[in-house]
Amino acid sequence: VSERPRNFWGWGWEDALPSEDARRGLAAQVGALFGRDVVPRPLPRLEDVTLDAPRLRAPAHLAEIASDAKRERVLHTFGRAYPDLVRGFTKDFGPAPDLVLLPRNEADVAACLAFGVEQRVAIVPFGGGTSVVGGIECVCPQGMRGVASLDMRRMNEVLDLDETSRAARIQAGATGPALETKLVARGFSLRHFPQSFEHSTLGGWIATRAGGHYATLMTHIDDLVESVRVVTPTGVWASRRVPASGAGPSPDRLVLGSEGILGVITEAWMRIVPRPRWRASANVYYARFADGAEACRALTQSGLHPTNCRLLDAREAMLHGVADGSSAVLLLGFESADHPLEPWMTRALEIAHGTGGVCPKGAIYKDAGDKVEADAGAAWRRAFLDAPYLQSALVTLGIVVDTFETACTWLDFPDLYVKVERAVNEAMKDACGGGLLTCRFTHVYPDGPAPYFTFLAPGREGEEVAQWRAIKRAASDAIAAAGGTITHHHAVGRTHRPWYDKERPEPFARALVAAKRAVDPSGILNPGVLVDP
Amino acid sequence: VSERPRNFWGWGWEDALPSEDARRGLAAQVGALFGRDVVPRPLPRLEDVTLDAPRLRAPAHLAEIASDAKRERVLHTFGRAYPDLVRGFTKDFGPAPDLVLLPRNEADVAACLAFGVEQRVAIVPFGGGTSVVGGIECVCPQGMRGVASLDMRRMNEVLDLDETSRAARIQAGATGPALETKLVARGFSLRHFPQSFEHSTLGGWIATRAGGHYATLMTHIDDLVESVRVVTPTGVWASRRVPASGAGPSPDRLVLGSEGILGVITEAWMRIVPRPRWRASANVYYARFADGAEACRALTQSGLHPTNCRLLDAREAMLHGVADGSSAVLLLGFESADHPLEPWMTRALEIAHGTGGVCPKGAIYKDAGDKVEADAGAAWRRAFLDAPYLQSALVTLGIVVDTFETACTWLDFPDLYVKVERAVNEAMKDACGGGLLTCRFTHVYPDGPAPYFTFLAPGREGEEVAQWRAIKRAASDAIAAAGGTITHHHAVGRTHRPWYDKERPEPFARALVAAKRAVDPSGILNPGVLVDP
Repeated sequence: VSERPRNFWGWGWEDALPSEDARRGLAAQVGALFGRDVVPRPLPRLEDVTLDAPRLRAPAHLAEIASDAKRERVLHTFGRAYPDLVRGFTKDFGPAPDLVLLPRNEADVAACLAFGVEQRVAIVPFGGGTSVVGGIECVCPQGMRGVASLDMRRMNEVLDLDETSRAARIQAGATGPALETKLVARGFSLRHFPQSFEHSTLGGWIATRAGGHYATLMTHIDDLVESVRVVTPTGVWASRRVPASGAGPSPDRLVLGSEGILGVITEAWMRIVPRPRWRASANVYYARFADGAEACRALTQSGLHPTNCRLLDAREAMLHGVADGSSAVLLLGFESADHPLEPWMTRALEIAHGTGGVCPKGAIYKDAGDKVEADAGAAWRRAFLDAPYLQSALVTLGIVVDTFETACTWLDFPDLYVKVERAVNEAMKDACGGGLLTCRFTHVYPDGPAPYFTFLAPGREGEEVAQWRAIKRAASDAIAAAGGTITHHHAVGRTHRPWYDKERPEPFARALVAAKRAVDPSGILNPGVLVDP
Repeated sequence: VSERPRNFWGWGWEDALPSEDARRGLAAQVGALFGRDVVPRPLPRLEDVTLDAPRLRAPAHLAEIASDAKRERVLHTFGRAYPDLVRGFTKDFGPAPDLVLLPRNEADVAACLAFGVEQRVAIVPFGGGTSVVGGIECVCPQGMRGVASLDMRRMNEVLDLDETSRAARIQAGATGPALETKLVARGFSLRHFPQSFEHSTLGGWIATRAGGHYATLMTHIDDLVESVRVVTPTGVWASRRVPASGAGPSPDRLVLGSEGILGVITEAWMRIVPRPRWRASANVYYARFADGAEACRALTQSGLHPTNCRLLDAREAMLHGVADGSSAVLLLGFESADHPLEPWMTRALEIAHGTGGVCPKGAIYKDAGDKVEADAGAAWRRAFLDAPYLQSALVTLGIVVDTFETACTWLDFPDLYVKVERAVNEAMKDACGGGLLTCRFTHVYPDGPAPYFTFLAPGREGEEVAQWRAIKRAASDAIAAAGGTITHHHAVGRTHRPWYDKERPEPFARALVAAKRAVDPSGILNPGVLVDP
């Protein structure tokens, strides 16, 4: 157990939630934005939370790795989606698990699953607890005697490192900092930096097809997985460690995105890279977001493969302190451990200029030894990691605030953007009297962008979740109607099920149900996620 | 039906088989190599082939799209694996299908599958008929009344092209030349050039995870698929056209490599690219194959992403006329539609030199308008496409000749190479009294190469298939023992089943069986491939 306490209801570390002073300042800003009084509400205290008594007890052979302590049960009740934050903030931990299981090794994991099968207990695999889609909520399905959250935090080692092939064998419970620290000590890095990096785990990334650092090429954790081990209720699912294979459908690709319904990921061989020596970055400003989008399209179709190609609309750029609100900003970057990057960046800037971009400072080149100056990119990175804390702080102000994301073709994007803006603005007006919507591209592909939206609207106390639901539904319907996917990298969980069910091919849904039944015949694993219990 | 006749027993076009004169010349060469008399045997004639009467007739509603003509049945009996060539050459078409079905559209495909379900007829999806692993052999399983080969050749159109997102909607029956001609007319290309390019089809590539043109990054057809439509016996499996998604396990990735057991692929949206304007190429010579391998490792780990990075060992280079037999050769290439390639190639050659490579001619740069000179790379490309014809010609000389391939980590490669060489040389000695083995890398990854082997040994008339089987078994066992995959891009079919069954995770095998049963409950689709009938 980490000694730095996690916030039992909000994002991340307890001590990293903005202070009361900071929240008061934020309240003034947001109040000015929405033209109304906004006041920080008092923070909930764990001692005021009441939980139902556990429906079950750990059997003697699991006693060493089981806990029904209140703090553990509260921390494993659900993830950190907006409705989870509101419920947590209002001390509503209804779906608390009966038990928290903390396996130390694969034998423990198998024992936990056997317990679930024998005692009819649902098992919810738990990594960092950062799901924003209800993916780890401990709902007890009909016919089950209870629910146990299976937390992988004790299995967090880097077990092996192959410098020649550049791969490392890492346990699923390792968080971003835990695995990076060990890899960096050996001169390598996974370079997978989702926004949840500080708390989320390798197993969670694989289970949810997390999106990471790279804007192009290896955008998802999928591309970094060399092989994977998964403990299912009916045996170990272990793929061979090879760089590529054409032997039937990829077993790894069925695990990727399986969200805990097929088994518990225990470890994986992951592709790693040396830390970059050369970096090049440039901030390109566009009067029109559409021109920046056109630059992204040209860049991703150029074969230059920028590592960063993040387009912020004018509002997003202003909120993150990267621009003054009058222009969209493209944060462009290349990095390499092998070669200086002038030819890449020079051509990329030609392309960026070709669609009307302005880059007043030009490109900034850095070698490993150079002192890093604070630039717009650095400001962006800090704001990026702090954003979830900001969301929790806004929840204490009664603000309805969330993000949603998709991917669509370049052909569909202009229409999708208009439809989503219209639908979400209307829904915010109906539900909250108004609000703010921003957009950025997190990843870009030759055939389309991954647009990422943030919304912010004043809530009414006690009605925030209903208000959020109305906005979320409008956003999701608009995305689906415009041909986007319901999620590019936030996963499906419970929140996205209705749209996911329509998006996936119907015969595939039946194949997935059958596949789950084949490896989890008792249906104990994360029931209700991806497929019906 | 194409007007240029296909060779009913051998590779490709009937008129492209090396002539009798050419085969006599080849016999002299091979005879000298093995120190024995080698004589071309007479070619088989279709009129001398006898087939059993079909076990079934097409129902009236399928009469327009069904054929039981002898030539059609013979051409659809099996693929072009070495045992198929020998059987065809000796006029043994035992597993001829009872019927050949030629659907014109999806409704026809669905009607064919319904016929299979109702009449208990196995349906074997057929693209170009080029399987080298027994993937389309028309074996009639117990309990079935007969077998129909379902040939997609009439569904061969490019239906739509999205220039903005760079994707095209292409029917599954389109061969390489058919689809490239149409794309090139619009300024684009799929740039997927497997060795079977002239005859194989988009649907076949997707069903078998074919390997294509690119040595790095987008090595398999998998990476070019944006979405796919598959007609299953229980409904249409159609994925949404998006550049990427994190919504559950990828439905497309379960179709990729499904080898016809889940449904019939009818069309796909494929990522396309403009034809390259700039090309850079260089041939780098290495005294030791291992040094060339080291160069490949460094190149693929450099982030330069060469489009060609093909390492030939000394024997392979000599056989293909690229070198004199004293050195391994690395065929290195870059191409781009966006930018000149000097910085890329310059750095790549630094790396190639760094491991002991010599590049006497230096890099050759070409702009689109330049006249293409014949170089070692061009000699290679011609030999590459002619190789399957050469194999058929060698079959007429009684030579046991085949290729096999794998992928493994860089760490495992030296050991795998030694083990495979030893096992195959021993097996050739035991079975044939000796033989020749060559190796090249077809594709390379940051974590390992895809080694591709060719073997050649004198056969004994009537025993060639048994001799081949002994060598193939030795090769496959050695690959498995050294940690390689049983196939990087040749697929599983029937030939690789024993090794595939051990390679895939056991719970995945059960999941795949269950998935198949969910979409093909009657088990009519390609029974015996990937899973037991």
